Amino acid sequence: MKVVLVGAGNLATNLAVALQQSGHTILQVFSRTSQSAELLANRVGVPAITSLSQLSQEADIYIVSISDSALSTFDYTAFPTHSLVVHTAGSIPMDVIPLERRGVFYPMQTFSRQRIVDFSEIPIFVEAASDDDTQFLTDFAHTINNKVYRLSSADRLYLHLAAVYCSNFVNHCYAMSEDILRQHGLPFSVMLPLVDEVAAKVHQVSPHEAQTGPAIRHDENVIRHHFSLLENDPQLQEIYAIMSKHIAND
Amino acid sequence: MKVVLVGAGNLATNLAVALQQSGHTILQVFSRTSQSAELLANRVGVPAITSLSQLSQEADIYIVSISDSALSTFDYTAFPTHSLVVHTAGSIPMDVIPLERRGVFYPMQTFSRQRIVDFSEIPIFVEAASDDDTQFLTDFAHTINNKVYRLSSADRLYLHLAAVYCSNFVNHCYAMSEDILRQHGLPFSVMLPLVDEVAAKVHQVSPHEAQTGPAIRHDENVIRHHFSLLENDPQLQEIYAIMSKHIAND
Repeated sequence: MKVVLVGAGNLATNLAVALQQSGHTILQVFSRTSQSAELLANRVGVPAITSLSQLSQEADIYIVSISDSALSTFDYTAFPTHSLVVHTAGSIPMDVIPLERRGVFYPMQTFSRQRIVDFSEIPIFVEAASDDDTQFLTDFAHTINNKVYRLSSADRLYLHLAAVYCSNFVNHCYAMSEDILRQHGLPFSVMLPLVDEVAAKVHQVSPHEAQTGPAIRHDENVIRHHFSLLENDPQLQEIYAIMSKHIAND
Repeated sequence: MKVVLVGAGNLATNLAVALQQSGHTILQVFSRTSQSAELLANRVGVPAITSLSQLSQEADIYIVSISDSALSTFDYTAFPTHSLVVHTAGSIPMDVIPLERRGVFYPMQTFSRQRIVDFSEIPIFVEAASDDDTQFLTDFAHTINNKVYRLSSADRLYLHLAAVYCSNFVNHCYAMSEDILRQHGLPFSVMLPLVDEVAAKVHQVSPHEAQTGPAIRHDENVIRHHFSLLENDPQLQEIYAIMSKHIAND
């Protein structure tokens, strides 16, 4: 397939590498910022453009990976009507794109430019306005990996919400742990074997079965003691109390 | 070293395997429950005992891996005064053991009988009442791995507290995510690549630097929208609100 990437951020960077590895041709990388456009374009060896007037009309698919807020103000008239235009946002409905051939291609992962992830492991959630385009997009996603799911905009919202718990909130728990350790002269690296094991465990058993710790044991002595250790940090204490209450009620 | 294991739970089971792999001799496994004692004793091929009157007096070190509450009521008079007696609990002070040669050997990990973990990767936190025993225990721990830290009972409390955030609270985030997915017909397995990447990322960058998502971006539209999606689940909504507030303030 001939592809144009609109946006040159973390997701676009990772996707560009995966698309080339799967044999697709990236015609152009567009970004409003010439520095971002060139950074990615140079990385994958394709032309960078910064004006929509330069947009190639030859692509089979245009993949728009820009911020959620930019998606609603983007000028979609630049795209040819004979091609499919998709965005990659978990929490934005497909219909933000005011075109007949519109869709969503949502690879669910946390991306950074510095870490190129293995795209073949990432589930891709697709949606399109017509049955033909749904099939087209499903086939396209299958060239990258075999974890392709069709999902409506309404259900994708909940998927994205579930991902916030599994990534953003999990990472914040790591950050709070780091704060406690730092106050006692310990590096966060001592936690890494535990971090890895907790993640590995839920590959084998459901998170509800995997729960351990004072809250699920209803060990009030330890809970009260932990709570008192946090008396100088009301924020951490608030999280401790609420998480423990929810685990105990689960 | 000649070792007696007191307790036959998840930690004792994993430790027994690691001790034998490191060339130590387990003389006995003690448990009040004959079934638990025999299960572990058979697994490692050593005698099981269920009465402290049968306790060997020949061990160099006695490792007491029993519940936090049992540690405070245990009959420590059964141990020979010439040997070191240690417990393995993160949140219990060393001085719960009323003996001159007392200490703590705390391998920080989440253990289950079904999953034998690689002990060489687990940090071990040691403490003893005398300098000689601290050295003895440090050397002993080094026979298992090279991640050995000396830590006081006071600091170990905070370490254990930090571990609750990194394991119990993280796992609860996974569980909440699973609940949301289940309500929309999606299996938790779609989250596993994300779970793994979030854990892998903090091997390279600090959790504070690794934070992503709507809260750290102060994306009020997405946050409000997510909040409204959870209106039928006040528990999940409460966690969403408080975690997002804390991430935004971080």
